[in-house]
Amino acid sequence: MHFTKQDIENLDKQTRVHFINSLSGFKSANLIGSVDNQGQENLAIVSSVFHLGAHPPLVGMIIRPHSVPRHTLENILQTGHYTINHINADIVEKAHQTSARYNKDVSEFTAVGLTPHYNANCIAPFVKESKLKMALALRSTQTIELNQTELVIGEITDVYLEDDKAYCQDGFLDLEKLNTVAISGLDRYHTTSGLTRLSYAKPNTTLQTLNVTSLK
Amino acid sequence: MHFTKQDIENLDKQTRVHFINSLSGFKSANLIGSVDNQGQENLAIVSSVFHLGAHPPLVGMIIRPHSVPRHTLENILQTGHYTINHINADIVEKAHQTSARYNKDVSEFTAVGLTPHYNANCIAPFVKESKLKMALALRSTQTIELNQTELVIGEITDVYLEDDKAYCQDGFLDLEKLNTVAISGLDRYHTTSGLTRLSYAKPNTTLQTLNVTSLK
Repeated sequence: MHFTKQDIENLDKQTRVHFINSLSGFKSANLIGSVDNQGQENLAIVSSVFHLGAHPPLVGMIIRPHSVPRHTLENILQTGHYTINHINADIVEKAHQTSARYNKDVSEFTAVGLTPHYNANCIAPFVKESKLKMALALRSTQTIELNQTELVIGEITDVYLEDDKAYCQDGFLDLEKLNTVAISGLDRYHTTSGLTRLSYAKPNTTLQTLNVTSLK
Repeated sequence: MHFTKQDIENLDKQTRVHFINSLSGFKSANLIGSVDNQGQENLAIVSSVFHLGAHPPLVGMIIRPHSVPRHTLENILQTGHYTINHINADIVEKAHQTSARYNKDVSEFTAVGLTPHYNANCIAPFVKESKLKMALALRSTQTIELNQTELVIGEITDVYLEDDKAYCQDGFLDLEKLNTVAISGLDRYHTTSGLTRLSYAKPNTTLQTLNVTSLK
């Protein structure tokens, strides 16, 4: 099957949204916790969180114009802080339900049945049911002029890992031990199976398989 | 386990790289095909390709400073075109090997044993063994000032889907039919299993499970 630029243009809007959203490959599945200056909390599912750098530890995410997580963006701009929480297989339906257009005065935590968890290191709520939680400090926002999406970049200030068996000897995390899921397209969720872990590649050198061995 | 900002700072460099790269969740697995103005071809594995918008169909990717895919960035800037090719389970080792630091005059296609495929719609080579291939036209590049990474944004001009059974009735693609893999951390590859596909969420409405049914 070959889709030209014109074929893509000719798709009806919803078909094009599903199709184009499928093309980039598998996506991360995270819940973004935030509060506004009055303490009104918000929780939004986002599939656009991506690694941006390890030193400083930076994470980017894309917020679309007029999308539901705009409350999230407003909150982050007000407080400068937010949380990122991995979605695991046990909370997929609740996480997906946060994408409904709730009014600003509704906490998605309450609406979908997830538990907000606060600690002294971050003003924004974590998701208690998530097994990998991060606190972030906002570092920059910029508008992508091509389509008016917003690129939000934060620095990771704290990481909470529920199961230390996921922490491997070289710093690598075994996300399968945390039941972290992946997303494809707009709305499909996947569990994963480890295929292989491969050594640092060098020219003319055969790749080795690396162990995924926890410290504990 | 709690890692503070200082704990992260204190990790040795390689441990920190593995750890922070694991935090964003699952990542897409793609090969970027490009050529320079003299036709010297290049192929690079990239885990940072992400969906940016459906209309126009835009895809972003992050190129790190001094990283191997800098040849890719130079080529894209020269020609304005590149390809994105999904990595499937059959070509994981070859795809990973493209990350070795080959000299500019070496084609990674030849070095790792993948087959370049050219057609009239794109100056850059596709990966014949990939089951989902896209041609892109460069739309913008911008430097992320926080860490000097480069955000490269392209518009999808052509999509080639090998197996039409992956195309579902509403435009959604079943990536599992294409054996597309996901990446975690720097170097682990995963196959996936569909957990569920969920309907558009609305407040006070129960989610429905959607079918993943091919057109053919």
